[in-house]
Amino acid sequence: MTNTYAVVLAAGKGTRMKSSLYKVLHPVCGKPMVEHVVTNMELLGVKKIVTIVGHGAEEVQRRLGERSEYALQEEQLGTAHAVLQAEEVLKNLSGTTIVICGDTPLITAKTMSDLLEHHKSTGAKATILTAIAENPTGYGRVIRSVDGNVQSIVEQKDATAEEQLVREINSGTYCFDNEALFKSLKLVNNNNSQGEYYLPDVIEILQKENEIISAYAADEFEEILGVNDRIALSQAEETMRLRIAQHHMREGVTIIDPRNTYISSEAIIGPDTVIQPGVIIEGKTTIGMNCTVGPNSHIVSSTIGDETTIHSSVVLSSEVGDHTSIGPFAHIRPQSDVGNDVKIGNFVEVKKSTVGNGSKISHLSYMGDASIGTNVNVGCGTITVNYDGKNKFTTTIEDDAFVGCNSNLIAPVTIGKKAYVAAGSTITKDVPGEALAIGRARQENKDGYVNKLNIK
Amino acid sequence: MTNTYAVVLAAGKGTRMKSSLYKVLHPVCGKPMVEHVVTNMELLGVKKIVTIVGHGAEEVQRRLGERSEYALQEEQLGTAHAVLQAEEVLKNLSGTTIVICGDTPLITAKTMSDLLEHHKSTGAKATILTAIAENPTGYGRVIRSVDGNVQSIVEQKDATAEEQLVREINSGTYCFDNEALFKSLKLVNNNNSQGEYYLPDVIEILQKENEIISAYAADEFEEILGVNDRIALSQAEETMRLRIAQHHMREGVTIIDPRNTYISSEAIIGPDTVIQPGVIIEGKTTIGMNCTVGPNSHIVSSTIGDETTIHSSVVLSSEVGDHTSIGPFAHIRPQSDVGNDVKIGNFVEVKKSTVGNGSKISHLSYMGDASIGTNVNVGCGTITVNYDGKNKFTTTIEDDAFVGCNSNLIAPVTIGKKAYVAAGSTITKDVPGEALAIGRARQENKDGYVNKLNIK
Amino acid sequence: MTNTYAVVLAAGKGTRMKSSLYKVLHPVCGKPMVEHVVTNMELLGVKKIVTIVGHGAEEVQRRLGERSEYALQEEQLGTAHAVLQAEEVLKNLSGTTIVICGDTPLITAKTMSDLLEHHKSTGAKATILTAIAENPTGYGRVIRSVDGNVQSIVEQKDATAEEQLVREINSGTYCFDNEALFKSLKLVNNNNSQGEYYLPDVIEILQKENEIISAYAADEFEEILGVNDRIALSQAEETMRLRIAQHHMREGVTIIDPRNTYISSEAIIGPDTVIQPGVIIEGKTTIGMNCTVGPNSHIVSSTIGDETTIHSSVVLSSEVGDHTSIGPFAHIRPQSDVGNDVKIGNFVEVKKSTVGNGSKISHLSYMGDASIGTNVNVGCGTITVNYDGKNKFTTTIEDDAFVGCNSNLIAPVTIGKKAYVAAGSTITKDVPGEALAIGRARQENKDGYVNKLNIK
Repeated sequence: MTNTYAVVLAAGKGTRMKSSLYKVLHPVCGKPMVEHVVTNMELLGVKKIVTIVGHGAEEVQRRLGERSEYALQEEQLGTAHAVLQAEEVLKNLSGTTIVICGDTPLITAKTMSDLLEHHKSTGAKATILTAIAENPTGYGRVIRSVDGNVQSIVEQKDATAEEQLVREINSGTYCFDNEALFKSLKLVNNNNSQGEYYLPDVIEILQKENEIISAYAADEFEEILGVNDRIALSQAEETMRLRIAQHHMREGVTIIDPRNTYISSEAIIGPDTVIQPGVIIEGKTTIGMNCTVGPNSHIVSSTIGDETTIHSSVVLSSEVGDHTSIGPFAHIRPQSDVGNDVKIGNFVEVKKSTVGNGSKISHLSYMGDASIGTNVNVGCGTITVNYDGKNKFTTTIEDDAFVGCNSNLIAPVTIGKKAYVAAGSTITKDVPGEALAIGRARQENKDGYVNKLNIK
Repeated sequence: MTNTYAVVLAAGKGTRMKSSLYKVLHPVCGKPMVEHVVTNMELLGVKKIVTIVGHGAEEVQRRLGERSEYALQEEQLGTAHAVLQAEEVLKNLSGTTIVICGDTPLITAKTMSDLLEHHKSTGAKATILTAIAENPTGYGRVIRSVDGNVQSIVEQKDATAEEQLVREINSGTYCFDNEALFKSLKLVNNNNSQGEYYLPDVIEILQKENEIISAYAADEFEEILGVNDRIALSQAEETMRLRIAQHHMREGVTIIDPRNTYISSEAIIGPDTVIQPGVIIEGKTTIGMNCTVGPNSHIVSSTIGDETTIHSSVVLSSEVGDHTSIGPFAHIRPQSDVGNDVKIGNFVEVKKSTVGNGSKISHLSYMGDASIGTNVNVGCGTITVNYDGKNKFTTTIEDDAFVGCNSNLIAPVTIGKKAYVAAGSTITKDVPGEALAIGRARQENKDGYVNKLNIK
Repeated sequence: MTNTYAVVLAAGKGTRMKSSLYKVLHPVCGKPMVEHVVTNMELLGVKKIVTIVGHGAEEVQRRLGERSEYALQEEQLGTAHAVLQAEEVLKNLSGTTIVICGDTPLITAKTMSDLLEHHKSTGAKATILTAIAENPTGYGRVIRSVDGNVQSIVEQKDATAEEQLVREINSGTYCFDNEALFKSLKLVNNNNSQGEYYLPDVIEILQKENEIISAYAADEFEEILGVNDRIALSQAEETMRLRIAQHHMREGVTIIDPRNTYISSEAIIGPDTVIQPGVIIEGKTTIGMNCTVGPNSHIVSSTIGDETTIHSSVVLSSEVGDHTSIGPFAHIRPQSDVGNDVKIGNFVEVKKSTVGNGSKISHLSYMGDASIGTNVNVGCGTITVNYDGKNKFTTTIEDDAFVGCNSNLIAPVTIGKKAYVAAGSTITKDVPGEALAIGRARQENKDGYVNKLNIK
């Protein structure tokens, strides 16, 4: 967007969070608050983003990287002082500067775009993003004059009885004419009880110069929530959670209980997929169409194909194919690649392994560092013994092999194509294709011996 | 109910669902929307139900079967045209015809019964089911005359400022005098912007004939919700979910968090049973009294006795007795029959098996195709090897047997009464009653050998 | 608090609960309702608590023990009659007597303290705890005179149209001058349709004697909820649940979804700990700082250190150290002591065992009655065979030992320091330190044998 810039205020400490984590880095739906704000500025296409950092400056910069420029506010002397730190980057630029707080993750790019458009259409030097509060107590009221422009912002403590009835409040987000902004900022003083330089004073300064001040009201009051403690954090989380759920529902995903479903803002889900209660989908996860993601499944940064069922299971940083069934109570650990038409059943852990199309690992097994071919049957209780106390080794199970129950496959080892491992065997050496491997003791029955046992 | 008929409108495609599943077949609390509607008509005891089908006609008919008669609406030319398709079935019958949409699953049988009674008591030729909306914007307003009868239905776009203030809205559900209905339907034209034949036009036609039109308001606005997209679907689900939970709470079931508990409309639960958060109960499930159904348990089409605990477990199409404890993290698969005083512990899968009274399968075991007697102790890690890659076989464990840990029972095999299988044995042949069976290698200790191993 | 006493009304049966459990013993957030009330009275520091018991008297007394004195109301003849039963304990004492119902667990100690202070400051003989109802229908209205004192309490059925508009209602909780209370109680009659002696009649009696009657309104209407059925029980649970969650959030705990998190009132949680959805924390549980308690974890009466992760697991009556990782799908059973830097992985059960610092039990294992040293590696599928059908025995695994996968450790047995158990071994006798123990059959390969098998 030509000649548009953004200043993101992210220097405050956030004492009421009672956290060693810097306030704007607290995540909402898995992403730090300030990152939501910066992402929205990117969506607007602003030419420069200047993030004002202070407390935790390094961590914020590490997190945002080159997506923003930075200005350091060494001492927290107020919001006007904070914005002034961006002067070095923005001075002498003509155009519009958005000022937005890093702790308001719910203001949408749509609202910001509407605000900008409004600002540009009115010829105002400043436009305030406002909202209509059910209960405006405590907020600065936006008093409009007859022509609809802003006459003043009145803080709660200064409001007359009549002004207190005004429900339109100042969100703390603004568009400014860039040059007017920095000219005015220098005129702001700190003659107030807190001894701080306040950004809303710029409005008054511009007004005295007979500039037009406009205001634009966000559609929803909840958008302008500023997160100052963890209760507000949980409210922001809830609002964003429902927004994300509604997006997917509109696109044809059934979500049985949107209040009890936790989907990251980066997830992609295909139509006619059903998401059951308690599901958590984190990170850049893609889920295909016609899937069933069963209750309490927890999927992180993974890709799931079409018509696959994941029931009460954990899938981390892995790929899962089509028509595959996972769980209940399975755990697919990172770097796994599970094919099509696979069954991973209950109490099965797959770690850093490939499972070929049509294979079954139905129960109580651990496949770690394994390469499993197609149409393999891994019997119940099979364990890849991939660790000798020092190193990890690979197990290879070739196509159409049958591994009997409760077998130990001591890696490195290969079970050949169509080979058959007898149940209860400990396999220490390779099994050729089509061979039967067996390694177990022969059963002996001692008749009537139970009566001699000391135990019953 | 003598001389009462129902026309269920179920021909629309439901484009906004973005689904390959036909709209009225989307389930709410586990049952397709249209089936909720038809069930309510059955509860009213109407003499004929005619479901108007169009998109997905075959699937709807397959689902409802002989519970309804059907009329095909080949082209979707409007609601009046839809109802007219029922003429073949309903013509010349005297009595009352209910017209109800297949996507309004929340209208209760009680409300419909009250509507019918009201209709019959007033001598009206048509009675509109209405509701009082908090915010009526977008709905057709029901304008009543001084005598309380309906003067007109005014669509949003045609409403005067005064009419827009009316909060009583048309639900789209009606009772009609059957003969008057079909006579009027033929007079409806499609001279409107959509070129459709609208059912509300019948009201106007009857009014011109000086017939009485009445209206009856449902107790709750939420009842009349029509489901047109998945957001509405999730709202219908939530409302019905809370209704079901409240029903059980009134009957003496403790539900810790009704918002986070998912019980099918067909479930039966005994008093003093406690349902913890996250529980899902599907299908025709019966749970006895004094049970504890622990967090996130998922029970489908099963019967559970009294004083049984099911903790964080999955139970599918099975029977479980009294005073039995299941879980956490157990999986009872279909066709299992678990007795009284049984313990099925963590990470245990039971599939198509019988478990006799007093038996214990406490940990990490798989019992598949097994018949287990009474007072059997199945040690940790025991596996029934029921599959040889081609066929499945049965394992029998007789009363009072003790199966040591990590045993493989290679089916078909029988462990006799009071027999004892030593831990770590692979059992390939039958063990006689009271015999000790052992099949494992002898332990050797190689002193100081660890230092020679290449691995530490 | 000098000269302050409390009468807790807990004699009613609670028919609408439809329970064999006595009403006031139904738990809210894990603690019986009446215990919440008694705890609040203790927090106020009242000198005597007299609980009026009737139905289920013994169970209530067993639960509250010596925290209260008791008076038996043999027949339920009304609330005035109930309070009168406390006369034996309270007669002739000067001071203030609180009368509170045992089914109002949400009235806070803060509200009661404010009520008491108000009562003492006004010189009233009686002060009514009131609340402002959104919809007062059904409640007794508190009618105040011009001076702000109470003029009368008017029951719904007796209220004039004007009185029905009054939204201040009687909560059923009072402060009385003790002597005036018992003097008045004797004047109450049962000339009413129910034939009961009603406590509010005392107010009228005092008024006729020209005593001052005052009223104090609770901040929140929801505080005064009386629990008479399980729907109200679930509402009380929800309100208390959110209060507890907000307390922890204010103290620096992140709770992703407070509506879907279940924390007992006795739990202590350190700052910067994150509680994910579906978590249940019961009893006196302490969780340190910087922990992650993952989705659906269920922790009961346990102590968890700092920087520990518990993911989708169950922990019962145990201790867990710092920087330890548990789960997903692990089960720590009572009397376990898990150290620092430990990993307990998926499908692992630990029962009555000690796990030393730095040890790993990563998958599919059962450690029961085990004493595990530091830096031990317990391989996948390892089972302590602690039960022989009659007795339980102990397994000891000393520091730095390595137990190979799928081993059976037949207790009593000791694996010595730095010893190594080969995978698949059944260990029946002690393994000396630094020894290698092996007990498994040798593998045989039968080339091409698969084609001879009858099974493929």
